[in-house]
Amino acid sequence: MTNPDAQRPSIVVLAGGIGGARFLRGLRHLVRDRAQITVIGNTGDDIWLHGLRVCPDLDTVMYTLGGGISEERGWGREDETFAVKDELTAYGVEPTWFGLGDRDIATHLIRTQLLGAGYALSDVTAALCDRWQPGVRLIPMSDDRVETHVVVDDPDGAVDAHGAPQRRAIHFQEWWVRYRAQLPAHSFVQIGLDDAKPAPGVLEAIDEADVIVLPPSNPVVSIGTILAIPRIRDAIVDAPAPVVGISPIIGGAPVRGMADACLSAIGVPTTAAAVAEHYGPRRARIPAGAPGGGILDAWLVAETDADSVAEVTARGITCAAAPLLMTDDDATATIALAALGLVDFDIAGIAP
Amino acid sequence: MTNPDAQRPSIVVLAGGIGGARFLRGLRHLVRDRAQITVIGNTGDDIWLHGLRVCPDLDTVMYTLGGGISEERGWGREDETFAVKDELTAYGVEPTWFGLGDRDIATHLIRTQLLGAGYALSDVTAALCDRWQPGVRLIPMSDDRVETHVVVDDPDGAVDAHGAPQRRAIHFQEWWVRYRAQLPAHSFVQIGLDDAKPAPGVLEAIDEADVIVLPPSNPVVSIGTILAIPRIRDAIVDAPAPVVGISPIIGGAPVRGMADACLSAIGVPTTAAAVAEHYGPRRARIPAGAPGGGILDAWLVAETDADSVAEVTARGITCAAAPLLMTDDDATATIALAALGLVDFDIAGIAP
Repeated sequence: MTNPDAQRPSIVVLAGGIGGARFLRGLRHLVRDRAQITVIGNTGDDIWLHGLRVCPDLDTVMYTLGGGISEERGWGREDETFAVKDELTAYGVEPTWFGLGDRDIATHLIRTQLLGAGYALSDVTAALCDRWQPGVRLIPMSDDRVETHVVVDDPDGAVDAHGAPQRRAIHFQEWWVRYRAQLPAHSFVQIGLDDAKPAPGVLEAIDEADVIVLPPSNPVVSIGTILAIPRIRDAIVDAPAPVVGISPIIGGAPVRGMADACLSAIGVPTTAAAVAEHYGPRRARIPAGAPGGGILDAWLVAETDADSVAEVTARGITCAAAPLLMTDDDATATIALAALGLVDFDIAGIAP
Repeated sequence: MTNPDAQRPSIVVLAGGIGGARFLRGLRHLVRDRAQITVIGNTGDDIWLHGLRVCPDLDTVMYTLGGGISEERGWGREDETFAVKDELTAYGVEPTWFGLGDRDIATHLIRTQLLGAGYALSDVTAALCDRWQPGVRLIPMSDDRVETHVVVDDPDGAVDAHGAPQRRAIHFQEWWVRYRAQLPAHSFVQIGLDDAKPAPGVLEAIDEADVIVLPPSNPVVSIGTILAIPRIRDAIVDAPAPVVGISPIIGGAPVRGMADACLSAIGVPTTAAAVAEHYGPRRARIPAGAPGGGILDAWLVAETDADSVAEVTARGITCAAAPLLMTDDDATATIALAALGLVDFDIAGIAP
């Protein structure tokens, strides 16, 4: 008997939270068991809260694909209660701004205990997925602690000797959840990044992929953080497989979340074409002698942004427009099918 | 200004869980702010569960005196929910037999995080009591980890080469909660006992007490464990203050809990007189040249056990009978008043 996975095509997806998770649900609906899906999940949003290791993006992918997500919120568990959080507040323990649900806490307790026992985050994630059976292989980008912080003007208004606002780095979750990304971000700093190694299986998955997909996740703090882990971006640049992305920007605004605030911080306009340009065309696709070399072979934009197709195509990136609203699994499967078609991925073999 | 505490009489109480906690509520009701009450709490029942440090007896005292206890169960929080526990079960994580409530978990999270940050259990207990304002000073018997285990015949029926049951030591909570103390206990083993030190303040409180009270807590696994911490029993034997106990046995059975199963294991009959004999009369009260030297000056038994008064008295322990059912705070205050009266504690000064 040979390993059936060795015969199934391999799709590798880099994912953040809700955008990546909903895309993955549609992709899984499309391919069913005819391809193996490996998800490299962002852990830059991870945070230690009340002694618990919380991995918001991994859990959003796991709960969404495992049927446990709150559809209404897009994060955390369905039918959630907040008794523990209310009690922590009654004790006067900070922080109080993070929505730590009771059901969710069970996941964090197990994760924290296993990490404390010496297991790697990738092993722990696999153990948690034993329950949820997400139908994909979910790997954190790294087993090492990498935490995105955001440089902002002091939220309490502290100023320096010249009266200018003092800058402070706050945890990404504080910026995102507590301040709803309303504090202008000067920059993002990934603490622990330089020493972080890709988790076991990440580079192999990229190397052996038949296609690599960037779903409509946040290009800065989700996919950008995954790409920033040493060797991951290079592995994608060098991968034999084609790389196709789906624009998270529709009509000049993020579909959800606050990607515009993140793009502003790194000087990228909030347009579908600018995000494609930020990822950049792969080296083989740029004129000989020209500088650069990015990661995109193809880019799918919304119908609303059809006028940017020519601009993206001119940069050496195959581009097309299609409806991009992930309203349900069928609609999302159609988006995935369109994206895979852009890089001539063996649609015939996996299409319904 | 002098410290008002220096002028208030000091009452020291050794306490386990529900029996000790309910007695303390009546005692506090009796003395109001006219005496300082210091509680030395049993931590031998403590257990690490899912990475959390759980201190059942400390929490029962804290919640009972702080108004947060479940009156119906006698342990854990009122209006409790069990979402985290249900989720842990859904993950297939053991153990599943401990009733870990959501509200309760907040307490354990704070405790575990502070312990992890290097704070001593006594400091953590004081911090938790900041919220609950129990009206007493609650000190764990020790900051060191001491865990009571119970030696039983293998619950799964394992036998040795001769067909005899193999013995195993299981955690006290497993014996008490999972097996409802129905597995015969061969003995109790306190792991960590030899190296445990009394927590800061314990020996000083005993030394400076005006009266020391043993409430109707379990004489083996609650008060017995506190007394087993090196130097605590000796400190009580040598304390200037009188020591009075309230029988946890009424009419040959424990008022609540399963003290009879614990007494059997150490060969003490389940009678009020036998428990007094087990604690033993203080040295000054036994005939010159006779062996021994215990900790009791006086012992209060239930009216049902009035016929044991003579037997206890003959052993050199002042003894009387009184109604001992702690039906409410008034009834319990009356019990406390009777106990304090047995050792001529300054009742006039503190009685209502």
